[in-house]
Amino acid sequence: MSQSLNILDVSLRDGSHSVRHSFTVEQVRAAAKGLNAAGVRYFEVTHGDGLGGSSLQYGLSKVDELKLIEAAVEEATFSEVSVLLIPGIGTKQDLQAAASIGAKMVRVATHVTEADVAAQHIGLGRELGLKTVGFLMMAHMTPVEKIVEQAKLFESYGAEVVYVTDSAGALLPHEVTARVAALKDTLQCDIGFHAHNNLSMALANTIAAIEAGANYIDGSLRALGAGAGNTQTEVMVAVLEKLGYQTGIDLYKLMDVANEVIAPLMQQPQEISGSSLVLGYAGVYSSFLLHAQKAAQQFGVDERDILMELGQRKTVGGQEDLIYEVAQQLVKA
Amino acid sequence: MSQSLNILDVSLRDGSHSVRHSFTVEQVRAAAKGLNAAGVRYFEVTHGDGLGGSSLQYGLSKVDELKLIEAAVEEATFSEVSVLLIPGIGTKQDLQAAASIGAKMVRVATHVTEADVAAQHIGLGRELGLKTVGFLMMAHMTPVEKIVEQAKLFESYGAEVVYVTDSAGALLPHEVTARVAALKDTLQCDIGFHAHNNLSMALANTIAAIEAGANYIDGSLRALGAGAGNTQTEVMVAVLEKLGYQTGIDLYKLMDVANEVIAPLMQQPQEISGSSLVLGYAGVYSSFLLHAQKAAQQFGVDERDILMELGQRKTVGGQEDLIYEVAQQLVKA
Repeated sequence: MSQSLNILDVSLRDGSHSVRHSFTVEQVRAAAKGLNAAGVRYFEVTHGDGLGGSSLQYGLSKVDELKLIEAAVEEATFSEVSVLLIPGIGTKQDLQAAASIGAKMVRVATHVTEADVAAQHIGLGRELGLKTVGFLMMAHMTPVEKIVEQAKLFESYGAEVVYVTDSAGALLPHEVTARVAALKDTLQCDIGFHAHNNLSMALANTIAAIEAGANYIDGSLRALGAGAGNTQTEVMVAVLEKLGYQTGIDLYKLMDVANEVIAPLMQQPQEISGSSLVLGYAGVYSSFLLHAQKAAQQFGVDERDILMELGQRKTVGGQEDLIYEVAQQLVKA
Repeated sequence: MSQSLNILDVSLRDGSHSVRHSFTVEQVRAAAKGLNAAGVRYFEVTHGDGLGGSSLQYGLSKVDELKLIEAAVEEATFSEVSVLLIPGIGTKQDLQAAASIGAKMVRVATHVTEADVAAQHIGLGRELGLKTVGFLMMAHMTPVEKIVEQAKLFESYGAEVVYVTDSAGALLPHEVTARVAALKDTLQCDIGFHAHNNLSMALANTIAAIEAGANYIDGSLRALGAGAGNTQTEVMVAVLEKLGYQTGIDLYKLMDVANEVIAPLMQQPQEISGSSLVLGYAGVYSSFLLHAQKAAQQFGVDERDILMELGQRKTVGGQEDLIYEVAQQLVKA
């Protein structure tokens, strides 16, 4: 079994969605201190939508993310702090600013078919001496060949790790295995996997990814994250230990930060609710949910039928007009 | 793929633990009506600890379970109502009473090594014309050969289905596969599987069980159940559909009862909290938790070390004195 699993905790980035971008310096400091003490190699601190995400469109951050990153870096004597960058939301200047205050890793995230927009950002990450990662979001939406092609692009730009990112929590283990194994066969760089739990398969998918060769693995304490949340880091570490993997993490210390720092700041439980299940089942962007609900009311159809149809059509962000068109067509049908 | 999966919903029985046995006739009627409309073949209505469980020791029921069973039976025009019976807690008279008001299935539950206490109860179930099931609890605690031996006993008494019951949520998929496959190889009767989600593997384990030949599968709406809850029925049905299984269940109607009936009555979210994770990781009875916490405080040791040691020793219910002994030994060590 692999002795070199790199666990990356995203509580302070994907979790930002779940707390509506309300993290304070004190909260980040306490979580960072705990993750560092537990021996977590990497953790990520950024607005949920990455550097520069604080906006009316994506949700305003209570505290400037650079202040949060700075606090995290101060606590991270062992761990290294990662930042997420989505080209089009964050800029190269944002990345330079994060690196200048001590971020050590950047994950450049694009839609699974759009790696080509990230060439310059990957290049800059390498120039700045950061560990530089490509992050292919909504990885369920394309066949295996397409994700291999896009991952190769990331590698050609200089990415040291490429992630299969199941943003909608829509993948099942055999689909994860197919994607990760294909990347492992084709790429020289390391492979990562990021899960969401909308179909209750986040940890099972994560284990499938590790068995297929992924060695960068995301988790979130108490599953704090968008939708139904992520793979729950402390549960993952417990299960990986039972399976004989060495994570280098002190499980009790990790449980302590989950229960004493993260649990008290949660604004709602990370359950699989009606909405998160439908999003995972349909395989659509979580930002479509409110539109689908409005359209359902306006046209008197079931929001689930709208979301399923959007999933069938592989609708992507920016195509929100389609939601109303689909609702209208459902009425006629 | 199997075309004959029997889904059994335990929201109104295992869920009784989660709501501290406070189900009302109105709640049971609404849930039963929804489960029936969705086409769920079986659902279970009993105190969390089975017939006769209402007591100071196991928790007093707000409403007499026979009244709840009666209400469920009235709504179940398609579904059949199951009751749980743990010999030593419930009696043969309790079972006769449940059958006389329309229960159609009994699941006789014992510790995984104690099927022999259930011979008469299985026999009575058959006499009463009920679908009669053996339910081997804490199935992680014994090697495969032992569970095969105990399942054979159940079958010899007349059980038509024998369940592998992961009461502590401690099993991993390969362990589920080993157990179910061994029973499938050895027994003529049908095989069932009941999961808990303490290690976030309930649904993955359930899929492993189905792939190994189980065709009776438990779930709970919104995961309502003891510990971290059960396999979430509506999520399971969505995922089984994606995998190509026919469940005969109307997914949207099932989601509706989950979200409109069960979600509003929940007293706490079914998250994997600190306690439920430790119980699954250690593989011990949930009733040990409070004792372990008391002993930890009394002796100044970590409750997790106590629980892990109890798991190592394969401690079973009734051995609560050992908890304090273990705490004392941890101080000396």
